[in-house]
Amino acid sequence: MALIVQKYGGTSMGSPERIKNVARRVARFQAQGHQVVVVVSAISGETNRLIALSKEIQANPDPRELDVVISTGEQVTIGLLSMALKDIGVPARSYTGAQVRITTDSAFTKARILAIDEAAIRADLNAGRVVVVAGFQGVDEEGNITTLGRGGSDTTGVALAAALNADECQIYTDVDGVYTTDPRVEPEARKLDTITFEEMLEMASLGSKVLQIRSVEFAGKYKVKLRVLSSFQEEGEGTLITVEEDKKMEQPIISGIAFNRDEAKLTLLGVPDRPGTAYTILGAIADANIDVDMIIQNVSQAGTTDFSFTLNRSEFARAKEILEAVKTSLGAREVVGDTKICKVSAVGVGMRSHPGVASKMFKALAEDGINIQMISTSEIKISVVIDEKYLELAVRVLHKAFGLEQG
Amino acid sequence: MALIVQKYGGTSMGSPERIKNVARRVARFQAQGHQVVVVVSAISGETNRLIALSKEIQANPDPRELDVVISTGEQVTIGLLSMALKDIGVPARSYTGAQVRITTDSAFTKARILAIDEAAIRADLNAGRVVVVAGFQGVDEEGNITTLGRGGSDTTGVALAAALNADECQIYTDVDGVYTTDPRVEPEARKLDTITFEEMLEMASLGSKVLQIRSVEFAGKYKVKLRVLSSFQEEGEGTLITVEEDKKMEQPIISGIAFNRDEAKLTLLGVPDRPGTAYTILGAIADANIDVDMIIQNVSQAGTTDFSFTLNRSEFARAKEILEAVKTSLGAREVVGDTKICKVSAVGVGMRSHPGVASKMFKALAEDGINIQMISTSEIKISVVIDEKYLELAVRVLHKAFGLEQG
Repeated sequence: MALIVQKYGGTSMGSPERIKNVARRVARFQAQGHQVVVVVSAISGETNRLIALSKEIQANPDPRELDVVISTGEQVTIGLLSMALKDIGVPARSYTGAQVRITTDSAFTKARILAIDEAAIRADLNAGRVVVVAGFQGVDEEGNITTLGRGGSDTTGVALAAALNADECQIYTDVDGVYTTDPRVEPEARKLDTITFEEMLEMASLGSKVLQIRSVEFAGKYKVKLRVLSSFQEEGEGTLITVEEDKKMEQPIISGIAFNRDEAKLTLLGVPDRPGTAYTILGAIADANIDVDMIIQNVSQAGTTDFSFTLNRSEFARAKEILEAVKTSLGAREVVGDTKICKVSAVGVGMRSHPGVASKMFKALAEDGINIQMISTSEIKISVVIDEKYLELAVRVLHKAFGLEQG
Repeated sequence: MALIVQKYGGTSMGSPERIKNVARRVARFQAQGHQVVVVVSAISGETNRLIALSKEIQANPDPRELDVVISTGEQVTIGLLSMALKDIGVPARSYTGAQVRITTDSAFTKARILAIDEAAIRADLNAGRVVVVAGFQGVDEEGNITTLGRGGSDTTGVALAAALNADECQIYTDVDGVYTTDPRVEPEARKLDTITFEEMLEMASLGSKVLQIRSVEFAGKYKVKLRVLSSFQEEGEGTLITVEEDKKMEQPIISGIAFNRDEAKLTLLGVPDRPGTAYTILGAIADANIDVDMIIQNVSQAGTTDFSFTLNRSEFARAKEILEAVKTSLGAREVVGDTKICKVSAVGVGMRSHPGVASKMFKALAEDGINIQMISTSEIKISVVIDEKYLELAVRVLHKAFGLEQG
């Protein structure tokens, strides 16, 4: 007998029929003798509907009251799933975040979980009930309703698994696991049976949006066994996300090819090379709430250097404007940029012990005439910025170069 | 400075523009120096939508989980109204039933309020905030979410007014007060400035559905000053519902003419006159969950009597079937019935001290050739059953006979 936390997203809750399907799946796990805690998201589209409604009332909705409104989405689905379970004879009980009680800080719309009181849940499990918990929400110390930010239901699932010391946290999505790359780009992409937390973090942040990145960090920190599965397939083991030590001795050099289409790059040319310039540039960007991805600065020549970064394409115009002002105050030469770029990355913990991965990557790209505009590397990742028109070609070339094909 | 509880129904919350209108009205009261607690219903239609959704999952939804789902309607509107208030510079804070805390029994979908902790609300009011409370909901001792049944938001309003010892509880609806009769039937109908709780109960149960009857009982019990007003008019004092003692010395004999179109009557003829027959008949009807309105049994002749009652027309066929079975077991003679009837009532506390009201009523009906089929009276009400085709005529005749016209 195991204790399993299962998390179902909004698509799995998308219709009465789908909710009943989830109930049947949960019932099968319970029939196998497992204790099951289910965490659910709102019906797909509901949170956006409630946000839009709030914005009709107040252009910039009050964060405390917005959380009161949008937390209702998950309150509806916990009730509905509990009904569906009882309808097929499975004892069940729903819990809002406040009822659990999931205590968070008071950062409305982006709260962090501080503590979970698991006593009531454990009593229900021991009484043979399935426990259905609203994802995405909690309460602060004063009892104000809070929400955890987009994708917060994954975090609720992992946090509950940690608090209950669950044997596994299963995240059901509309894909059946984590792939070596996007199958729509490379049909030969292969589902990974396991991936390390670190690799998953690199894959997630690079556009393989299977899991909310915060929940992966959380799972890694608390050593929660995390599994990604499809809610639309009856069979399949999905992908298990593990701590590195669990991996086989003979691991592949890299695990997957990630990419991001929505990138743009900006460069400030001829920046005087003195302490504080990086802060001056990025501080101004951060003050405007613009997220920066890759940051590159090479050694200076003749007392000046070039400072580049990539960012989401939608922020390009705003960031460029800010850089123009920074240019003047820093006495830099010129601002240049390009929105027709993309980023492609090879990710794998194996590359730590395999020198030459980077050169293999650059060689493969060169053989197909793909010019590399920028390079950034970490312990387990090599990213290149290239012309966006080469994205699909680069993914397929690298997928093949590192032997990631099926079979 | 007064402490006012205002309750707004689903129609008043029906659109972002209407919610903003409510906010502006609340702001005006606050600007006059009053402390304001606002109780809101769900957006009109939302509760029905959530019930329908639940029934798609479970034909007979689990009551505990149904309350979890349907209580979200009011949680959305408290958030939205608080945003609308803050948007026009009025400090406001929303409260769910659980946050207040409104403690109820555990009778899911029809819970009764046991206690209200008003400390947090009072602190907010003293800090200059408008407090926005979700109607229709509470929590039981164990923290399970409960709802108060249809129209329960009126009850929340009155109960909060009682707990806070408010100066007035204002119920905003789509009518501007209580009328002497339905203005659609008698254009000369006049809005009453005051009406007693007892009269209001008789008017409400007879089809002038302005207020939930439970909230009127509650207000009478706790001596809450209750006022019915229109949420769509800027001016107007509405109708104040008072304890009788507050009324003027010279009160009218009757206050209004109520009526109910949806009535049907059933009679069991030749029932042996012995103890227990009334229970045998009505017990069978009650077991089938059929509500009975008037009940009439006259003195027996030759050892048998006739037993009649009225009920909602939609239940006629089912009730007739039950009576046929009862007829056999009791040895009664025959079941007869009629669905083409209606009930018209004269209501007024003044009739207590004015004998001759009944005869005046019967005379007025007779002069216009309206035959009376059944009569039932109470301390402050005289009801007659007549052919439904005479309904409008009877209302107008009685309205005039008792001098209820405008001016």
